[in-house]
Amino acid sequence: MYAVARFLRFASRSALRSSSHTKPTHRVSVFREIPAARFSSGSGRGSQPARPSAASGIAALLVGAVGWALLGPREAHAEERATQEEPRKIRLSEIHEHRRGADALWVFKGDRVYDITDWVPNHPGGDVILRAAGGNVEPYWNIFTIHQKQDVYDILEQYFVGVIDPRDLVDGRVASEQIDDPFATDPERDPRLRKHSDRPCNAETPASELGTFITPNSVFYVRNHLWVPEVSDADDHRVTVEMGDGSEKEYSVQDLRRLFKEYKVTATLQCSGNRRAHMTAGSRPTNGLQWDVGAIGTAEWTGVRLRDVLTDAGVPVDDLPPHIKHAQFLGAEAYGASIPIEKAVDNRGDVMLVYEMNGQPLPRDHGYPLRVLVPGNVAARSVKWVKRITMSEEESTSQWQRRDYKCFGPNEGTNPDWDRARSIQEMPVQSAITSVEQVSTGGLKDNPAARVYGLEEESFVLEGYAFSGGGREIVRVDVSVDNGRTWQQADLLDNDAGGCKAWSWKQWRFSTPKRQTARWFVVKAVDEAYNTQADSFEPHYNFRGNLASAWHRVPVQLARD
Amino acid sequence: MYAVARFLRFASRSALRSSSHTKPTHRVSVFREIPAARFSSGSGRGSQPARPSAASGIAALLVGAVGWALLGPREAHAEERATQEEPRKIRLSEIHEHRRGADALWVFKGDRVYDITDWVPNHPGGDVILRAAGGNVEPYWNIFTIHQKQDVYDILEQYFVGVIDPRDLVDGRVASEQIDDPFATDPERDPRLRKHSDRPCNAETPASELGTFITPNSVFYVRNHLWVPEVSDADDHRVTVEMGDGSEKEYSVQDLRRLFKEYKVTATLQCSGNRRAHMTAGSRPTNGLQWDVGAIGTAEWTGVRLRDVLTDAGVPVDDLPPHIKHAQFLGAEAYGASIPIEKAVDNRGDVMLVYEMNGQPLPRDHGYPLRVLVPGNVAARSVKWVKRITMSEEESTSQWQRRDYKCFGPNEGTNPDWDRARSIQEMPVQSAITSVEQVSTGGLKDNPAARVYGLEEESFVLEGYAFSGGGREIVRVDVSVDNGRTWQQADLLDNDAGGCKAWSWKQWRFSTPKRQTARWFVVKAVDEAYNTQADSFEPHYNFRGNLASAWHRVPVQLARD
Repeated sequence: MYAVARFLRFASRSALRSSSHTKPTHRVSVFREIPAARFSSGSGRGSQPARPSAASGIAALLVGAVGWALLGPREAHAEERATQEEPRKIRLSEIHEHRRGADALWVFKGDRVYDITDWVPNHPGGDVILRAAGGNVEPYWNIFTIHQKQDVYDILEQYFVGVIDPRDLVDGRVASEQIDDPFATDPERDPRLRKHSDRPCNAETPASELGTFITPNSVFYVRNHLWVPEVSDADDHRVTVEMGDGSEKEYSVQDLRRLFKEYKVTATLQCSGNRRAHMTAGSRPTNGLQWDVGAIGTAEWTGVRLRDVLTDAGVPVDDLPPHIKHAQFLGAEAYGASIPIEKAVDNRGDVMLVYEMNGQPLPRDHGYPLRVLVPGNVAARSVKWVKRITMSEEESTSQWQRRDYKCFGPNEGTNPDWDRARSIQEMPVQSAITSVEQVSTGGLKDNPAARVYGLEEESFVLEGYAFSGGGREIVRVDVSVDNGRTWQQADLLDNDAGGCKAWSWKQWRFSTPKRQTARWFVVKAVDEAYNTQADSFEPHYNFRGNLASAWHRVPVQLARD
Repeated sequence: MYAVARFLRFASRSALRSSSHTKPTHRVSVFREIPAARFSSGSGRGSQPARPSAASGIAALLVGAVGWALLGPREAHAEERATQEEPRKIRLSEIHEHRRGADALWVFKGDRVYDITDWVPNHPGGDVILRAAGGNVEPYWNIFTIHQKQDVYDILEQYFVGVIDPRDLVDGRVASEQIDDPFATDPERDPRLRKHSDRPCNAETPASELGTFITPNSVFYVRNHLWVPEVSDADDHRVTVEMGDGSEKEYSVQDLRRLFKEYKVTATLQCSGNRRAHMTAGSRPTNGLQWDVGAIGTAEWTGVRLRDVLTDAGVPVDDLPPHIKHAQFLGAEAYGASIPIEKAVDNRGDVMLVYEMNGQPLPRDHGYPLRVLVPGNVAARSVKWVKRITMSEEESTSQWQRRDYKCFGPNEGTNPDWDRARSIQEMPVQSAITSVEQVSTGGLKDNPAARVYGLEEESFVLEGYAFSGGGREIVRVDVSVDNGRTWQQADLLDNDAGGCKAWSWKQWRFSTPKRQTARWFVVKAVDEAYNTQADSFEPHYNFRGNLASAWHRVPVQLARD
């Protein structure tokens, strides 16, 4: 519960700080911008052509010209709208009827009811708004905290139609059991996962499960920003490629399997906050989920190349026009992110749309039925439940692209120059100790590790991983048993990994006689560009706690008997 | 002189250590391997078909089968060969006639003369041996120190033809003024360059000349491994592309200009030993030239894409066969190196054959008339005076690929596991302070920097560079004026730089009130993959002193008045 509360508190602070970017007179938003094409399609109401309205069409056109939040289609549904003086009383059951699929879409907030039908096509966040229709909008605004400000409240008031009938209220509010829980349909999780938050689910792989080259699906770390979308049948899901010139092409998962060559790529995914708890412990408090060593995992991914799909859709991947600079991805739950187009179309980049993870259909937590895989980049760009891929001149405008997944200088406070910082794509070299086993003299002959290493006295056997971004292979892992004074090389384990570059972690092992150990075990790694890890956290501290990749130190005492 | 002596001493130690890799029963050599094709061409004597010899042909075939150094063509030129008992006396003038171009090629060592005609086509080092013909072989063996061992002396003895006439000897040796100096025709160098060695020339750009985005040709650091080849006319020079299947294609510089599209790429070249002196000072003594901050420079390079040339030569660059894994480059002076083929043919790799540097023909010290440019990689792979490009399944076998340009763990001594270490290609993030200017209160109004920064009290203005390998752009430079306790961000200067990635350094500036400074100015940088620099040298020490990229610290005291 504490973790959830902190998550929401931070998100809330973010939203407050963002107000200068989202005031109604500017079209730049931390949410997805409204494509101009939406306003030139006649009715201005997208998917609801059955209810044309000249007034709302004109209004929508004006919105496109002067800013989405200043105007709303004030005239529509006037017959259903009560005055402020004599609000109509509405039963909850009636509100529930105005859910997704209904002609008119209603939501409530507190005891006030709104008909947002005309707002839906103009919603900057896209059609995720449909999820709230027929119920309470507040649980969603607690997630998308950017709504929690007066500008947005004012817009909503324009759609007021009445108040909830007092017979459906308890102490002036709708009873909590009557309110939809966006996370109610999330899947069950393996109890071995170490949960940092429940709603949304964020859970890391326990160190004890990090010892295999392939991380089993059931204990692969879960990093959700929102709820898990419900897709009962993979073929109900479509992904649309938007070319940036207004044209688009849609594919079902079955289309992808049928039209394109299938590839298998083994790749490690790592959250930018992996080892954040170590940065906090080694320097100062950081915002965000306090991951230990387990916000990382490796899987074999099966799917098709994004490059091939884009080519089929008509993107000239080998001769890109200047207005295509980024590939933006949008998930079914409204999460968004982007990568530079050069990575998206790189012949050796192995960017894929994947539908299998370790030979199984993608688990729901990992993007069923379709996700993006961007090997070598921070996992936040491998968008799950992907439903839209947009060729764009700019990065995704989501908060996850423009804010959360960035990194700052150690002197920058909690309101840094967000725009100056580069969004994280490739990650720096990283390593961690995941296991320290003490082999006592008595256990030597029965211990498999002791046999492998030929141990002849009381020893420690250490295991861990090392990984670097951009497909840069780990070439050396240095271990110190005397607090970093001297170093020895760990054994790097060989593993077959499909893909054009070294997208997967290297696992390593090391043994040392107990009598040589001092106070700390320390590990650091080197990648093929000879990048290495910082000695300590403080000089690389950033308040977001991202990219916590300084040496990993584990007290020897913890492992002693 | 000291630097030269040290250079040769180290080279000599390297050669001695290498003996296990070069013993005659193995075909792997730290020099270029003899291609099998050379032995299947009939006479076994390559360019000298006018003097066929069945015996030497058979011998050469045997060499191909069992190792080049075991056998030599013992029967050829028997008529010119004296017995050991009654050596023929030969005048120096006669030896001089047997130089490059003559039918028979002689060298002397001490007072002994050898006819090496039959050895030349089998020389593992290629035809650089012709440079010694007609004179003393010893100056070259002092450079290519791999020759200084009994195996090689034994081979030479097989070609003995006589001794030098005592009339040409002083104290039993040829007078030094009679001996060719391989460096006699090296160009004059700008006196501002800081020389670390003369023969070969190794000289760095003084910090005072590092303040411009483009480094002028005259003060661009010089890193020569051997002498500077003499090419009077660019069109006398040819580069040959070897396809790896025995076929090859040759291009003059004029051909390259005529056949291929010209590109301009701005790129920084940096020696792997840049800042080696800082590693020595910050940890322990290191081998190699003790470069300060100036073994780095940036130029605009004009030439053609290697990818285009390879395509023209017949290499299927987009569908490489499995036996093409590396592009090896050989310079006219016998230096050799290689890069992975993926980099060589990468559409966005900008690997070029260049003939101009900053709008001028390449200076002789920088490869006139043609060099390779491998942006983003250690400069040692940008082979100068390139004359041969070989598609190969393996890396260049030169000592510069297999030994010198590698990096090791801090615990590895001077005889590390050479094969386990990866040859350096891309380099890690680097930064340096190149200038600290004190602006006194009196000078504030006249000082341009003071005007730019709006300084209002006694201050320091710092300048420097930051750079990372692989085209990874520098995104942040942190400066500390209190020994690394707190950090501020320097201003990064914008510069137009042609090329597909960020191949050029970023220059930075920073100012600070004098009253805020403590004992050390410190700089560190961050690249777009958020790689950063190590805090200190000792944990990253390697005996070669390569990739010395820890924080750069400059004592404030040095800059105080």
